Amino acid sequence: MTTDARAAAGVGDVGGGVTAAELRLAARNHALPLEALRWPITPPGLHYVLVHYDIPAVDPAAWRLEIGGRVTRPRSLSLAQLRALPAVTRAVTLECAGNGRALLEPRPISQPWLTEAVGTAEWTGVPLALLLDEAGLGDDVVELLFSGLDRGVEDGVEQRYERSLSLADALAGDVLLAYAMNGAPLPPQHGFPLRLVVPGWYGMAHVKWLGAITALTEPFGGYQQAVGYRLYASEEELASGDGDGAPVTRIAPRSLTVPPGIPDFLTRERVLDAGRCVLAGRAWSGRAPIERVEVSADGGEHWSEAALDPPLGPHAWRGWSWTWDATPGAWTICSRATDATGETQPLTPVWNVKGYVNNAVERIPVTVRG
Amino acid sequence: MTTDARAAAGVGDVGGGVTAAELRLAARNHALPLEALRWPITPPGLHYVLVHYDIPAVDPAAWRLEIGGRVTRPRSLSLAQLRALPAVTRAVTLECAGNGRALLEPRPISQPWLTEAVGTAEWTGVPLALLLDEAGLGDDVVELLFSGLDRGVEDGVEQRYERSLSLADALAGDVLLAYAMNGAPLPPQHGFPLRLVVPGWYGMAHVKWLGAITALTEPFGGYQQAVGYRLYASEEELASGDGDGAPVTRIAPRSLTVPPGIPDFLTRERVLDAGRCVLAGRAWSGRAPIERVEVSADGGEHWSEAALDPPLGPHAWRGWSWTWDATPGAWTICSRATDATGETQPLTPVWNVKGYVNNAVERIPVTVRG
Repeated sequence: MTTDARAAAGVGDVGGGVTAAELRLAARNHALPLEALRWPITPPGLHYVLVHYDIPAVDPAAWRLEIGGRVTRPRSLSLAQLRALPAVTRAVTLECAGNGRALLEPRPISQPWLTEAVGTAEWTGVPLALLLDEAGLGDDVVELLFSGLDRGVEDGVEQRYERSLSLADALAGDVLLAYAMNGAPLPPQHGFPLRLVVPGWYGMAHVKWLGAITALTEPFGGYQQAVGYRLYASEEELASGDGDGAPVTRIAPRSLTVPPGIPDFLTRERVLDAGRCVLAGRAWSGRAPIERVEVSADGGEHWSEAALDPPLGPHAWRGWSWTWDATPGAWTICSRATDATGETQPLTPVWNVKGYVNNAVERIPVTVRG
Repeated sequence: MTTDARAAAGVGDVGGGVTAAELRLAARNHALPLEALRWPITPPGLHYVLVHYDIPAVDPAAWRLEIGGRVTRPRSLSLAQLRALPAVTRAVTLECAGNGRALLEPRPISQPWLTEAVGTAEWTGVPLALLLDEAGLGDDVVELLFSGLDRGVEDGVEQRYERSLSLADALAGDVLLAYAMNGAPLPPQHGFPLRLVVPGWYGMAHVKWLGAITALTEPFGGYQQAVGYRLYASEEELASGDGDGAPVTRIAPRSLTVPPGIPDFLTRERVLDAGRCVLAGRAWSGRAPIERVEVSADGGEHWSEAALDPPLGPHAWRGWSWTWDATPGAWTICSRATDATGETQPLTPVWNVKGYVNNAVERIPVTVRG
């Protein structure tokens, strides 16, 4: 590789210097290749994947979902029993809470996502509210705890992956226990045989390899709730152990673009021919419906309104398109989503210790040739 | 993150310092999570993926395979016509030629694979020899050229992805034009609607998104044959442009282990309890059948013979297992494959400019607790 090529590859860039640990995580987990935004429902294997520990080995014949804690009728359900219950299918966009982390400076050391840790699937399963109703929740229940079968160590704490939802969030519309993804049994990396799906929330809430649901009368204080998945403004706030960083919950608005033209293998920089170019992408928010997408070809100097495709459903991303008259030169494609609450994407990232919820506008450098 | 945690994460390690370009590639492409070695046939979405440029958008109704060049009967075949021909299914292990690249020093800058860019699938399709026989090859044909629909730029050369095989290699047993993977249509990232499968060869030979096969009377001199996928001992040899680095062809022997115990989220380092521990993994070679797998728990000081599972077929990896009496302390698990030619894995990598064929023995650090 020549010196120029090494420079183009970002050797010595502030955005480089990725550690061996981050590389090990990046080799295991994967984002959605941006060109795969062209599909409204993400094809198998292209949906982003984050596995905290290892994908557990689950024998579906022996597996049971244990529903317990403060309930009148504890249950132990087989996969066949779950599949015999009334099922619903919902198109849901999932995004990792750490999406955008590797673009923060200084870069929090964890899974080094750029912008593409997202995907949309059709999830089929049993409404959670139905199962909770059958189990009979005690009057003093405040939260439901969801326990995965995956185990590991994080910050020195040995644990199984567990997260809770408030009673109100758990009973909200369309929270599912999903056993199928895009019409097929869940793939191992997406939680086989059963995962929680909480439309609108970042990925950490959608507990995979679900083994137990426990009705709690006190809020859950486990690692993934009280320490992880919180917004700490400084190391000092994190070190204080007060656990009062704001919790990560619903997905902030974001838009991504199918990169136009063709890529350079190494740098992923794009080249395209001058002329009419239809830019397209997808935008989503877990907080309210997408109301507006703007597109810029000059890095955010000027913005134009994109046309929105018909909605796929209340929990899925929304397609958009905008026709660009591309003239020769160097350009930077940006898109910006705004939802019905008026929340929009910042132009520059908002930093926090663990690197969550960085929904800053994506920048795609392209060269247009005459 | 504390200073200790940053040190444990490899900040400042010689193995760190990964560039922004490498991270962009690592976010798109993905390896097999090592625990997924437990499946003899890799489940959908877990098989390694390397996409050189972009996954092309293919309309299967409009798509044709063009068979031309020096043939008596040029053909233009639809997917339905291909599916109507006699089909075979073969379990084939595929590995990226760049697997192990990120463990070389200095690290060649490209897709930064560690050890896990591998997978085994059941590929279904039409024997290539059958189609070539129908097309009628001219007597002076020396190579077959396989052209993908994916386009991009590499080292300044704009190209579609193309690779050739000698007539002998193309007509060899079990070379397939595959339209199904594990019983389902090819996923987009694995070459939908058709890819070449060349059992025993590294991944670069298995041309995806196949659009054309051309019978050539002179050897192909395109980028991916004459410049890429060659073993250059030095930058000077590469820069000389003689194109006489040895070509990358068949897969060298390698063995990987399902990591025992549970991982630390960030460092992926493993901890397990003392006692009997069955270590298992898979070994493969594209050059000859696997004849022997040895396992070491002490980083290669002492080796023991693993038991081999029955073969899955002539082109697929071979399962192995070995029972370890794990005693408290820090250990390094290694495994080493030897094939029927006697070729085995080196303990330290053999460096080359582009970082191909690094099949050095894998090292998995583990801590056993009492």
